[in-house]
Amino acid sequence: MTHSDNKPETPGLRRLMHEVIFEAETPSGKLFDVLLLWAIVLSVGAVALESVAEIRAEYGKLLYATEWFFTVVFTVEYVSRVYCSDSPRRYVLSFFGIIDLLAVIPTYLSFFVLGSQYLTVVRVIRLLRVFRVLKMTRYLGEAEVLMEALRASKPKITVFLGSVLSVVVVIGSLMHIIEGPEHGFSNIPVSMYWAIVTLTTVGYGDIAPGTVLGRTLAAAVMILGYGVIAVPTGIVSVELHKAAERMPSKSRCRSCGVDGHRAHAVWCYNCGSRLTKDSNE
Amino acid sequence: MTHSDNKPETPGLRRLMHEVIFEAETPSGKLFDVLLLWAIVLSVGAVALESVAEIRAEYGKLLYATEWFFTVVFTVEYVSRVYCSDSPRRYVLSFFGIIDLLAVIPTYLSFFVLGSQYLTVVRVIRLLRVFRVLKMTRYLGEAEVLMEALRASKPKITVFLGSVLSVVVVIGSLMHIIEGPEHGFSNIPVSMYWAIVTLTTVGYGDIAPGTVLGRTLAAAVMILGYGVIAVPTGIVSVELHKAAERMPSKSRCRSCGVDGHRAHAVWCYNCGSRLTKDSNE
Amino acid sequence: MTHSDNKPETPGLRRLMHEVIFEAETPSGKLFDVLLLWAIVLSVGAVALESVAEIRAEYGKLLYATEWFFTVVFTVEYVSRVYCSDSPRRYVLSFFGIIDLLAVIPTYLSFFVLGSQYLTVVRVIRLLRVFRVLKMTRYLGEAEVLMEALRASKPKITVFLGSVLSVVVVIGSLMHIIEGPEHGFSNIPVSMYWAIVTLTTVGYGDIAPGTVLGRTLAAAVMILGYGVIAVPTGIVSVELHKAAERMPSKSRCRSCGVDGHRAHAVWCYNCGSRLTKDSNE
Amino acid sequence: MTHSDNKPETPGLRRLMHEVIFEAETPSGKLFDVLLLWAIVLSVGAVALESVAEIRAEYGKLLYATEWFFTVVFTVEYVSRVYCSDSPRRYVLSFFGIIDLLAVIPTYLSFFVLGSQYLTVVRVIRLLRVFRVLKMTRYLGEAEVLMEALRASKPKITVFLGSVLSVVVVIGSLMHIIEGPEHGFSNIPVSMYWAIVTLTTVGYGDIAPGTVLGRTLAAAVMILGYGVIAVPTGIVSVELHKAAERMPSKSRCRSCGVDGHRAHAVWCYNCGSRLTKDSNE
Repeated sequence: MTHSDNKPETPGLRRLMHEVIFEAETPSGKLFDVLLLWAIVLSVGAVALESVAEIRAEYGKLLYATEWFFTVVFTVEYVSRVYCSDSPRRYVLSFFGIIDLLAVIPTYLSFFVLGSQYLTVVRVIRLLRVFRVLKMTRYLGEAEVLMEALRASKPKITVFLGSVLSVVVVIGSLMHIIEGPEHGFSNIPVSMYWAIVTLTTVGYGDIAPGTVLGRTLAAAVMILGYGVIAVPTGIVSVELHKAAERMPSKSRCRSCGVDGHRAHAVWCYNCGSRLTKDSNE
Repeated sequence: MTHSDNKPETPGLRRLMHEVIFEAETPSGKLFDVLLLWAIVLSVGAVALESVAEIRAEYGKLLYATEWFFTVVFTVEYVSRVYCSDSPRRYVLSFFGIIDLLAVIPTYLSFFVLGSQYLTVVRVIRLLRVFRVLKMTRYLGEAEVLMEALRASKPKITVFLGSVLSVVVVIGSLMHIIEGPEHGFSNIPVSMYWAIVTLTTVGYGDIAPGTVLGRTLAAAVMILGYGVIAVPTGIVSVELHKAAERMPSKSRCRSCGVDGHRAHAVWCYNCGSRLTKDSNE
Repeated sequence: MTHSDNKPETPGLRRLMHEVIFEAETPSGKLFDVLLLWAIVLSVGAVALESVAEIRAEYGKLLYATEWFFTVVFTVEYVSRVYCSDSPRRYVLSFFGIIDLLAVIPTYLSFFVLGSQYLTVVRVIRLLRVFRVLKMTRYLGEAEVLMEALRASKPKITVFLGSVLSVVVVIGSLMHIIEGPEHGFSNIPVSMYWAIVTLTTVGYGDIAPGTVLGRTLAAAVMILGYGVIAVPTGIVSVELHKAAERMPSKSRCRSCGVDGHRAHAVWCYNCGSRLTKDSNE
Repeated sequence: MTHSDNKPETPGLRRLMHEVIFEAETPSGKLFDVLLLWAIVLSVGAVALESVAEIRAEYGKLLYATEWFFTVVFTVEYVSRVYCSDSPRRYVLSFFGIIDLLAVIPTYLSFFVLGSQYLTVVRVIRLLRVFRVLKMTRYLGEAEVLMEALRASKPKITVFLGSVLSVVVVIGSLMHIIEGPEHGFSNIPVSMYWAIVTLTTVGYGDIAPGTVLGRTLAAAVMILGYGVIAVPTGIVSVELHKAAERMPSKSRCRSCGVDGHRAHAVWCYNCGSRLTKDSNE
């Protein structure tokens, strides 16, 4: 936010653009964000519709024009963001900077690579900005609790996924030997694909065991997968519970700084002084 | 409940009808409600049976008559409710008022639109009144806990569903490029449908990837979906836990009015006075 | 256990039979129970094998003889149980008494009704006696915690299942109107079957939507079902948590009789007297 | 670690080999482990690729040579481990000792039994050593919490699985009687396979009920399976919660040695002395 003094040309225009593009507090800034969100939704919708053969046959030209219109708009927006950012370098390398760039590149690439324009749907990720527009700090807080719970679950989930993948390799090879190419288990990678489809209880049915031994093993895999889904669920439940308990600001004690008090608590469990509500709630 | 004095004609009849229709305390009111519930079950059953070609061929006329009989009964009931309600306007615009109207309209519409009579099955929603008849206040209490947990989960669930839908759009587009129309991924909307079918582990198998790259991506989506189901489950678990702890009436302190005490607590954590059981438990 | 004096004939034999059949403490009683469990497993296995056409063609006579052998054994056992029970009436009407009778009837019925002998597999329920044989009181305790959690979940689960079934009726009718008989949604009961298959994420794929509108609705149903599975899981989690905390005998206070203390607690939270471990742990 | 004095020949070489092979602290020991892990990944990958007919047709000889190269390497490694282990007997009978042997036997067996070389994928289990290389003691701690939770869940899970299998036998037999061989329910074992596929919500669709009664029963099974999945999830959640609370080292009281204090606790609930953080955190 510290205005750099060594770029004095048109400071008014740059500051105005910065206000409109990067901030959502002013009316013009909010209008810009709302228009941008609708542009994203419409452009993703246009790409999705263009992929339907019947619609392309009839409205192909209109959708093609729409596609290029939005690409030009988003390109201008990207250049503006780089221009009026306080630190262009940091913006370009930030998560949203990369997504903003990826959102326009595929259309230009479609001159050279057929079908690449469908990749512009990464634009949908830009919709995450919606949280800023709607001032849903509450939602951001919730997202933070979710993210913290998932981050805390990472080591347990890694151990869990590693074990599951080992099981998939071993079961896949066994089923390849037992069932053979007759019922679709023509090689180990395909059998591993089947093992994942079964363990996760998706069960397409494009590959299914046909022999008695294969079906017995498959039944064991299903019951394993059925029990095994309990593990990540349990992990996330416990971590969410902890993360929710850890959440600050609810009722932090003014005297000793400890938080995590029960919802209705009146006295701090740590130092015994009376709890007062925070003003920002 | 305040009787409006400006409609003096037949106050006895209106009050009697009001008692029978809107209250479940008196014997006649209870009888009315039980008959109504059976009428709803029978009429929904008749509509379901009428849709089976073989049954319609044999009992078509009987079912058609039944259908009209119940529609007339429910129309009379609706008009009576509007007539004898304390505040007709509020009833018509209430949740049950709208459902009661939607429950009779489709049959009349079937003169103009073929097949619309099947929409009369919205009548099944009227069965929610069963809770009032059986005086299942206990069930209502439980439903309230469930609703409160779901309401408290809303922001987290919104963030979660938004992320899932973004993943569906991006994965759907990628699969359309990778697999192409050969294996059924003929356009982006269809591929998004496949992505939802796979992420939720439903797995019909009407569309399934056939290429090595497509199957690898599908396996990743399945494992993602498998892990991701842990998130809403964890959210609801934690919120149910909180809602159950918050439930009032279990042991509300008579001195300070605070509730949410532990199940076996003897002393109020808030003011220190002895807790006494509520009489209505 | 109070021996009835008005049946003085062969009290020694009856008491001996009672000891062997109903008790698992003595060596002969334990041997009887172990033999019985193996007889049950073998007879259920024989029925299952007999249903396989290839095996019946070759070993049909042997399996038929096995079937009748075990039926006669179980009939003798049932009559003996009735004879030497302290209260024949109570045994005959008890859960195991009814199962024991149902376990022999189908074979006799197979003279009159074809295929009824397969019903003898209800014998498998008799295996629940295994817990008594193995003296798994620990397992019984765990089963009790499970049962208590499920019993406590009942009102919430009832409300939940009622709502799910209403959704199934409404969605099933909508899909029948949208998709029609072309894609297999030939009547409302079949569409309701499809709705259950989809909501529970089983997804056979024998019936699957083909129109754009139908697929959109199906996707909504899947996401609903995906989120909705979180509800019973959350309910059971919370109730299991509570039931585990309530479990008696762990550390009941000798002074005031209150239980539910924390695992490591030394002082009663209720009356403040020192906790002592129960001797039966 | 106690060096045995009665084998004085080349103690330097044996000690050096022991250091390289069994320890991951020294640079050479770490290098050995990393090379080993890559060798395992490459050999499993080679076996998987060899099973694909098109790849075998082109690169068959190369993959065959790779397979034998790694088998010889792993055989040499196994013999070295036995040679330089402090207690060869204990190593050979340990979990990793058996896996190390099973990882080389199938290739030699492939001279006699066709297809047995695919069993070499049990090598993937050797990857569990990765935890030692990466010094992920943190991950090991998490794995321990998971294992403890699963161990504590065992009695409840046993009761649960026993009940599920009884249901599978009874439902399978009923469906065999109701549907018959017409819709694929040709015998009881196959019907039991269908019951498991449905209860676990996998739902291949290779066998699906076709009659009204069969579909009604199937719908009941699905809803049962849908609710029943809540049980293991709840069990594991509760046990994970307990295991996480029991985890030592977080805040063990220095005075009385009791752990399991609440996250923010300042005073020991057991002896009342002030809690101090452990230095290793």
